[in-house]
Parts: sequence; structure tokens; C-alpha cells
Amino acid sequence: MSKAMAGDTISLAAGLVDSATLPAEEIAAVMPDFFRERGRLALQYGTNEGLESLRRKVLSRIEKADGVPGGLDLGRVLLSTGSQQMLYILTEIMVDPGDIVITAAPSYFVYLGTLETAGAEIVGIPADENGMRVDLLAAAIERIVRAGKGASLKMIYVTTYYDNPTGASLSLDRRKALLETVESFDGIRPLVIEDAAYRDLGFAGKDVPSLWSFDERRDRVAYLGTFSKPFSPGLRTGYAVLPEELVEKVKIFKCGHDFGSASFSQQLIDFAIDRGIYDRNVAILRKTYAAKCRLMCGCLERELAGLAGWREPEGGLYVWLDFGDVDTGLDGAFFSECAREGVLYVPGEFCYPDRKNAPKGRMRLSFGPTSAADIEKGVARLSAALSARSSWGGR
Amino acid sequence: MSKAMAGDTISLAAGLVDSATLPAEEIAAVMPDFFRERGRLALQYGTNEGLESLRRKVLSRIEKADGVPGGLDLGRVLLSTGSQQMLYILTEIMVDPGDIVITAAPSYFVYLGTLETAGAEIVGIPADENGMRVDLLAAAIERIVRAGKGASLKMIYVTTYYDNPTGASLSLDRRKALLETVESFDGIRPLVIEDAAYRDLGFAGKDVPSLWSFDERRDRVAYLGTFSKPFSPGLRTGYAVLPEELVEKVKIFKCGHDFGSASFSQQLIDFAIDRGIYDRNVAILRKTYAAKCRLMCGCLERELAGLAGWREPEGGLYVWLDFGDVDTGLDGAFFSECAREGVLYVPGEFCYPDRKNAPKGRMRLSFGPTSAADIEKGVARLSAALSARSSWGGR
Repeated sequence: MSKAMAGDTISLAAGLVDSATLPAEEIAAVMPDFFRERGRLALQYGTNEGLESLRRKVLSRIEKADGVPGGLDLGRVLLSTGSQQMLYILTEIMVDPGDIVITAAPSYFVYLGTLETAGAEIVGIPADENGMRVDLLAAAIERIVRAGKGASLKMIYVTTYYDNPTGASLSLDRRKALLETVESFDGIRPLVIEDAAYRDLGFAGKDVPSLWSFDERRDRVAYLGTFSKPFSPGLRTGYAVLPEELVEKVKIFKCGHDFGSASFSQQLIDFAIDRGIYDRNVAILRKTYAAKCRLMCGCLERELAGLAGWREPEGGLYVWLDFGDVDTGLDGAFFSECAREGVLYVPGEFCYPDRKNAPKGRMRLSFGPTSAADIEKGVARLSAALSARSSWGGR
Repeated sequence: MSKAMAGDTISLAAGLVDSATLPAEEIAAVMPDFFRERGRLALQYGTNEGLESLRRKVLSRIEKADGVPGGLDLGRVLLSTGSQQMLYILTEIMVDPGDIVITAAPSYFVYLGTLETAGAEIVGIPADENGMRVDLLAAAIERIVRAGKGASLKMIYVTTYYDNPTGASLSLDRRKALLETVESFDGIRPLVIEDAAYRDLGFAGKDVPSLWSFDERRDRVAYLGTFSKPFSPGLRTGYAVLPEELVEKVKIFKCGHDFGSASFSQQLIDFAIDRGIYDRNVAILRKTYAAKCRLMCGCLERELAGLAGWREPEGGLYVWLDFGDVDTGLDGAFFSECAREGVLYVPGEFCYPDRKNAPKGRMRLSFGPTSAADIEKGVARLSAALSARSSWGGR
């Protein structure tokens, strides 16, 4: 394979959504109605909590998906600028420097960065094809308690659907076991953040009830979701269902940040749900990403069978690869060789709380924003870079 | 005057913009073009810094208004979720608990709250019809330095155009004197935040160069503005031109908060400027608010001449009233009497850093979102409440 021309680099790194799937035509078509019905409301200040009708939809959709009875106080549901802002605010409230947060290892690297900036000590629990190894959680908490740091354990962060980066979902058994484990420790009450950003993007298998749904008193788990991945990142609208004791605190911080995210975005999403645009778009996305995922995994089978390991995900945007003893790190020869071939990936090391001791051979590939042709070319380039391995010394 | 019926209360308190002035029809009319040209871009992720073409417009408009040469690095300009988010981030970066921030007294009460939450010690400098009494600034800084706290003086916050709450603009002489004063102290370098939120809403007199324009090295003043007041609060888009040494820090925090505000809003504002909608809207707003301001001040003359003092502002949304020895506080009899009459105002006490020792008789009235009829009725109710004064004991 020839070396990539300048400007021809294919990114399998970006966790974006496919521009071709953005519902521009459908939204454009309803704009006259939208402006007639809501134009002035959308252009005026909204509220700190976010648009009430959209918060009601968020809550009823989660309750319906989880098969739990309705009736939770709508005050528990808040909107934010993407789910990132809610992650940031929860971290601001919960974590002082030196406090402990448990995450999976690997985990969502942007949030690991947020935790590091907040001065958190991050304790990573290994993850496998069923998500965080919850069987190792009790021992980890025990170690924290024995070290006299039980009171410093402030949060457990877990992605429950089609994880970024691994693509794995936390199994039903582990959802229950996670909460049972947390509740088995007297006197410590870490907040469990359930990041369900990719829940709507399942394209194989079945949706399962959220971790939040097993928190029967609704006082331990904050459920976070977003309209960015399943609809439009440019509208930057995320949401959370919070334990009651956090609601007022989050509202005070949210008010300090911006006293409310863009009202226009919230009105537009609410209107798109009313008109069925949202659900139609999600259905299209699922098909699109299912096809791209199948394509990427087919290419991997063709190009890298026996040379790398991966598991075909049932949703989301990512395939997690294991190249064994090949160093996939940013400073390694493989990354450079890939750059020369013209393909980018996210080195797995960024996704581990303890980066220095991260396994060497992992990488995250995204099939989200990349065209079918570029997925094929990108994987072929990965393979070519790997073939060149002998020339750079086998590591 | 009869007592207000329930639900008939008129708010002269809200610092909103007039919904009738929101450019809903004009924006609706260009939506087909907007979606054709920018639909997918607007719905996709933007950047952490904000849309480059809009940042370029922000900078060139400020440079033009200030009559300064262009050529400043565009990297200095960042967009945020309203200017509030930028105020919050700058405070996060600059202020640790116990640090000192100088503001005018009175000053924008929402930001005073942000500073209190950050644990700042706020030093208030009295303000008059020309804004902050800059002649008192040197002595205040000297006291801080003599108390050994010079290194703790982190920021000076000043509203330079049509202040919230006083309506006053900082005079040209004082703009220069403020910077000279700050520069006269060796070894301390407080960041000067110039809040120019209302600059575009001048309707009498002339625009004057910003405080920022006199900071010739562009390394002491952060200039903050917003598209909320002059265009649409629902798009929640503010901006800042920053000293170079702050740019990277602010970008890191901004990325932590939300890795970029709503792209859709930024694209829409940029497009509205291109199509002339923004400037036409600002021209309409100026006329609308000039008329409402004139109306409110006429009502005040008719109803309260000799009983209260005020100065007719040349822009913005607010009239600042002085009722002398009448206690306008939230817990006072006058506020209750006004509530009974059916009119709300912002008690002046909220606008002072040292609330307990704030002057008793001040209040902020807003003519922004209120209809002409309600401005007339609202001021008449204030007057009626004041007439009832003898019955509640004269204070």
C-alpha cells in the first residue's frame, strides 16, 4: 500500500456523529411551524432547570424504557449544555482535591481528564465484555475503607450502554450487583453516576433497564443522558435525573455557570419529539451505525484476524481493539507508522486512569463520522502499518 | 388606587428583554437559506473556542467601534454560553477563597453572587452618575496593599456601558484613570473585567471607546459582551476578548465545562449578522427601549417628582431610583406595600457587596420586558404604595 498523501489522513479517532445522518432536511421542513408556534419563546430566556415539557419527556421516556412506575418529581430532571456540563457540575459539587472516584478501566477519557483537573484520585476497576468487573468492586472499596479513606470515596462513574471506549454494556446482573455492593458498606455513600449517553444508539440486542431503575429509593444514582449522539450535537443538550438531595445544589451551580442552557435548542428538540422527527432519526441512526459497525468489523476480520482481538458491539460508535504486545501508544512506533499510512486512532492508554501502567496494545476505533469507503481504507492502512512491524523492530 | 388582583402583579424587576422585539419573523424568513447553507454544520459539534467566522465578526466590530487598529490574534476571542459562563470561568481561574475582587457599589447582583460563592472578599467602590468612583480606587488598593493583601487582589470588575443596576456609563476620563491607577501599583496585576453587556443598547448620546481600547498592550483587560441583550437571550451566546496569558487557561476550563457552546446558536447569529438582521434588530431595539425609557421616566416625573431621585439613562434596560430614607429592602414595609399594590422591583440592597450596610432607599426598575401600559400602571402603583407610607409608619 502506498503512503498516504498529505491531507488524505483518515480519522478513525473522532467520537463525532455522522453529518450525513443529521436531520437537517426534516428540521428545515418544520421551521415555519416551529417559528409560528414557538419562535419568540425559543429566542427568549429559558429557565435554569430547562424547558419543562422537554424535561417531562425525558423522564417519561426513561421510565417507560425502564418499565418503572411514573410519578417521580419532575424537579429531579435538569437540562444541561451536553451531558458534559452535568458531569462537570456534579464533579464540582462532589469532589475536592484528594477525594476518590471509582471508574472502569478503561473509561471515557474526557471525563477522566475532568476528574484529574478536579484533583481526584481515580481508582480503576478492570472492565471486560460485560462492562466494569463489579465482582472486583467490593474489594476495591474495602481497600479504600481500610486505608481510612472511606469518607473520601465520593463517586462511582460507570457507562452502562455501549461504552466509550469499549463498546460493552454493563450486564443486567452487574447493574444489580453494583448497587448491592455500594449499599453493603455502612457509612459511605458515594454518588453513582450512570452515563447512558449511548443508550438510544443500540442496534443489536435489546435495551435493558438502567442501573438507575434498580436504585429503588432513587437516592444513589444520577442518570445522565444526551440528545447529542442520537439527534444533534450542535444543539448541545444533555439531561440528568438526580437524587433529591443533589437537585438544589446542582441548580445553584448551574445558575452560576449560565443560568440555563440555550432555550432555542431545548424548544427545537422538544418540537422535534412532538413531530416524530426525533424517533424517526434515531431509527435511521441505528440502521446507519449498525451497517457501519458491521462493515468495520468485516474489514477487521479480513485484515486483522489473528493479529488483533475485538468484539463487535451492539450499539454506540466504537470498536475496542487489542493488539496484544504491540505498543499502540502515542509515542510508539505503531502510531507513527499509522500516521505515515494515513490513519488515526485513539491510543488505548488515554482511557486508563493509571495511564503509565495501561495495557500497551489497545486502541479505540470509531465508525461514527467516517464514510464506508474510508472505513475500508482506514482499516487497510492499520493492517499495512502492522505489516510494516518487522521494519520497526516488532514492538 | 385599588389593590392589585391576584395574578395582576406587574414586574418592573425582571432584567429580561422585550419578547415583542425578538426577531422571530425575520429569522423565520431566512430559515430555508440558513438550512440550505449551514444546516448540517449547525447541527454538528462546533468547536471549544466557538465559530471562527463569528469570533472574527466580534473582534472586528469591537475594533471598529473603538477606533483601534485591527490585527489582534483571533485566538484571543472566545465564545461562551452567555457572558455569564465567561464570568464564571474567569472567576474559577482567578479567584480562590479569600481572594479580593473590587467592584462598583452598587454592581450587577448576579455576579456579586458568583463572587460570593467563589469565596471572594468583595471590596466595593462607590459609584455615581459617571460609574465607579475611580478617584477612590487608588486609596482602596493602597489599603489592600497596606494590609499585606496586595497579592490577593485578583480582579476588578466594572460595567462600562449603561450599568446594571444604575444605568450609568463609566466616563471616558474614568476609563483612562482606572487603567492608570491599576498600572501605578508595582507588583500587583489584577485582571480588569470590562462587562460591556449593554453596549449595543445605547439610545441617547454617543458610544465611547471601551476601557479595553485604552489597555494598549491588551494584557490587563478582559472585554466581555453578549448577543443576549441586543439580539436573542434564547441563543445564549456571549463572547470575550482576553489577555493572551488567559486564553489557554480559559480554553481548558471551557473544554471541561462543555467543550463548546451550542453550535446552532453561533451559526444562527453569524448568519443573522451576514444578512443584516442583527443590525436592523439592534436599531429597532434602540428605538423601542428609548421610547420605553422615556415613558418610564415621564411616569416617574408625574408620580414621584420630589419623592424620589433618578437619572434618565442613555441606554440599557434600567432606571435606578433613590427613595432616600424609605427602606426599599425585601423585608421592609415598602416592598410589602408594593407587593400588595401589585408591583415588583429589585431592592437596591442586593446590588451592594456589603448588603447589610447598603443605602436603604435604592431600587432598580427595568423597562425592558414590560409593556407601555404596564410601565404606567407599575409606576402608579409604586406611587400609591409610597402614599400609603403614613399607614406603615414612615419607614
